[in-house]
Amino acid sequence: MFRAVDVIRKKRDGEALSRAEIEWMVGGIARGDVADYQWSALLMAIVWRGMDRPETVALTEAMMRSGTVVDLSSIPGPKVDKHSTGGVGDKTSLILAPIAAAAGVLVPMVSGRGLGHTGGTLDKLESIPGFRVDATLDRYREILGEAGLVLIGQTAEIAPADRFLYALRDATSTVESIPLLASSIMSKKLAEGIDGLVLDVKTGDGAFLKNLEDSRTLAETMCDVGASMGKKMVALITRMDQPLGLAIGNAIEVEESLACLKGEGPDDLTDLSVELAAEMVALARLARDLDEARSICRRTIADGSALETFRRLIAVQGGDPRVVDDPGRLPRARKAVEVKAERPGWVGRLDAYPVGLASMILGAGRERVDSKINPAVGVRLIKKVGDPVEAGEPLCTLLVDDESGLARAADLIEGAYHIGDEAPSLAPLIVERMAEGAD
Amino acid sequence: MFRAVDVIRKKRDGEALSRAEIEWMVGGIARGDVADYQWSALLMAIVWRGMDRPETVALTEAMMRSGTVVDLSSIPGPKVDKHSTGGVGDKTSLILAPIAAAAGVLVPMVSGRGLGHTGGTLDKLESIPGFRVDATLDRYREILGEAGLVLIGQTAEIAPADRFLYALRDATSTVESIPLLASSIMSKKLAEGIDGLVLDVKTGDGAFLKNLEDSRTLAETMCDVGASMGKKMVALITRMDQPLGLAIGNAIEVEESLACLKGEGPDDLTDLSVELAAEMVALARLARDLDEARSICRRTIADGSALETFRRLIAVQGGDPRVVDDPGRLPRARKAVEVKAERPGWVGRLDAYPVGLASMILGAGRERVDSKINPAVGVRLIKKVGDPVEAGEPLCTLLVDDESGLARAADLIEGAYHIGDEAPSLAPLIVERMAEGAD
Repeated sequence: MFRAVDVIRKKRDGEALSRAEIEWMVGGIARGDVADYQWSALLMAIVWRGMDRPETVALTEAMMRSGTVVDLSSIPGPKVDKHSTGGVGDKTSLILAPIAAAAGVLVPMVSGRGLGHTGGTLDKLESIPGFRVDATLDRYREILGEAGLVLIGQTAEIAPADRFLYALRDATSTVESIPLLASSIMSKKLAEGIDGLVLDVKTGDGAFLKNLEDSRTLAETMCDVGASMGKKMVALITRMDQPLGLAIGNAIEVEESLACLKGEGPDDLTDLSVELAAEMVALARLARDLDEARSICRRTIADGSALETFRRLIAVQGGDPRVVDDPGRLPRARKAVEVKAERPGWVGRLDAYPVGLASMILGAGRERVDSKINPAVGVRLIKKVGDPVEAGEPLCTLLVDDESGLARAADLIEGAYHIGDEAPSLAPLIVERMAEGAD
Repeated sequence: MFRAVDVIRKKRDGEALSRAEIEWMVGGIARGDVADYQWSALLMAIVWRGMDRPETVALTEAMMRSGTVVDLSSIPGPKVDKHSTGGVGDKTSLILAPIAAAAGVLVPMVSGRGLGHTGGTLDKLESIPGFRVDATLDRYREILGEAGLVLIGQTAEIAPADRFLYALRDATSTVESIPLLASSIMSKKLAEGIDGLVLDVKTGDGAFLKNLEDSRTLAETMCDVGASMGKKMVALITRMDQPLGLAIGNAIEVEESLACLKGEGPDDLTDLSVELAAEMVALARLARDLDEARSICRRTIADGSALETFRRLIAVQGGDPRVVDDPGRLPRARKAVEVKAERPGWVGRLDAYPVGLASMILGAGRERVDSKINPAVGVRLIKKVGDPVEAGEPLCTLLVDDESGLARAADLIEGAYHIGDEAPSLAPLIVERMAEGAD
């Protein structure tokens, strides 16, 4: 019907592809009549020429339909998920999913693993002894029905065309394209069986997209794509200049998430988690407005119901629920090494990217797809932006098992802290909000 | 040493690649550690971002060195070849090679087959009964020594990396890039063992590059690449608006070439062939200047020595030399169909592209790489630009074996002839000349 070479030429020459052409190209992956080298040429042409909204919607739908689109209609209740574009210390999924579920939202969450300087939700959850993230889609449906929330990894049935294209993009430097990013994320999320989706699109030096304009375009694109398929969409654009919370690693991020659910976590992390959860509650029409949704979410922390929901999730996914009351049962690093301030002043900047890199080097993240994660290690921040420091006072603690990367990690952390003579002004964490088909 | 993904990213972001990076990427084809899907992404990034001169030179050299670089130093005498970027009815190789050889130039010519609307030198030669173009490189050297000229097809030993990349470009719409075109042509030509090269770069509607600026850039790029490797380079930019000569096909182009060598061919074809041959003679320092070179070349026609050289070439490459005196021995089409003028006037334009396409449809060319050529068929023009015509007078003859494409071919031809009320002004065939390391 079509020829790959003609479709590639059309995009190369800056023309928009038709829905039929896009469906044919995506279908060619499974049919086997479009070669990987043709797809990679097309991907580079898309990085070059872009895709308009109808093309992006068509690509998302074609990738979504390349696999199973889960039907959750047999489970009564509103299903809302959240997706974050990834940041350093970003463990909001572990906090907001129990909060939203405790407030009555069904949270069907299919997550990814971490690669590079940002951690993955699955890696963090797996630091809980026994926790399983590899459920089948039948079991996924069951867990959601039993626990009101479910957190698993992408299965082979979900958007296999996206899996193929993502691997190809990774090997051909064609990741950085807003329509490709948007369609990859949305094809997987729309296959989960959701009614609505809250997006946390990061912006800033520690984010994948560093400038606000790109983050905004990505957020708008994803909202448009979701809305075009009848989903309620909200996006918050949030700052990722310094890490979120104080813990960067795996077990220590679970520990910090538990603290937030107990009302004892750091404010930035708690506030963002509650805000995102409130958006989910409002999308699910379980509150009259966002203000009421916020109050409901705060109450699930105060009355312990969010913590109980997390305990139930851990138990139903095979983990040891005793970690909820006794985080000492989580893996611990052998050694703690402090990084100290060389001069007095105020922390004016704390760069998220080198902190994430340091944590990865210590073993908490993956340099390559096949690297093995050490759940115990990471970085525990003591000082963040706006904090006063004395010379010699500890800025953070490196949690170390294998000391081979210690010097490199410590160097990165020292370079990440910028101490000045004056207290900096603090920018708000949430930069912008947009909604489509939701408010 | 390098990673393909990083090299691709660098070009994607518009940076120049280093010689080492280019050599590593080309070497990766044979080593097997650069995947075809990585090369195709890089090719699309090159179409997008271009390559500067040092990159183009490095790519050409790397592709040339991926195979055998023929050493012809054991055969005494200047070795000069010609390359044309391809046009409709362009059979100058068959005329200028015998002329230049008769004038004392050694002509080692490795040619291609035709694809699309322009014919290939090898296909034309193979219409001579028995003519073989598949010699080994040892035999290639022998024939050159015996006959003073040799015309064979690309062997597997010549620039295998170019062969791989060309196939990939063909399948991924990454053909149209001046540095990729230049390096592909030059890598093969520089592997032939030549001292100098004359380029015939076509421009106009019937050429691969339609506008003069692109043709000029391609000519300059190829001259620079050749000169940077110590070769004497001359390029003529010539008009390809209407077909060259009167015959478009295979056997009929051989017949027309023989007519030119007998001094009986059409002027445009004879003049361009003599001009290109004269450039070869001058490059070879067998004349004091171009004027003298032109006289020498004209003399090889007048005294029959060029025709005798062609007869010797045919014999030594296994063909039937009797076709020289008796072109009736060449394959003949079963049927001749005239296309007639619908109105009187002057031929104001004759579009080369549809004429080439019509000839291809009749069976003289290849729609696909694996199509089989019919040597007998084609188009014999009667009227060309500037000729007066009467209503009902024949414009050309279609030479047909299989009538299935006849109606389509006739339609194309009718659309190709534009008959106006006034005699058009005729533009000179040769638009520009450039030389590097030659004059």
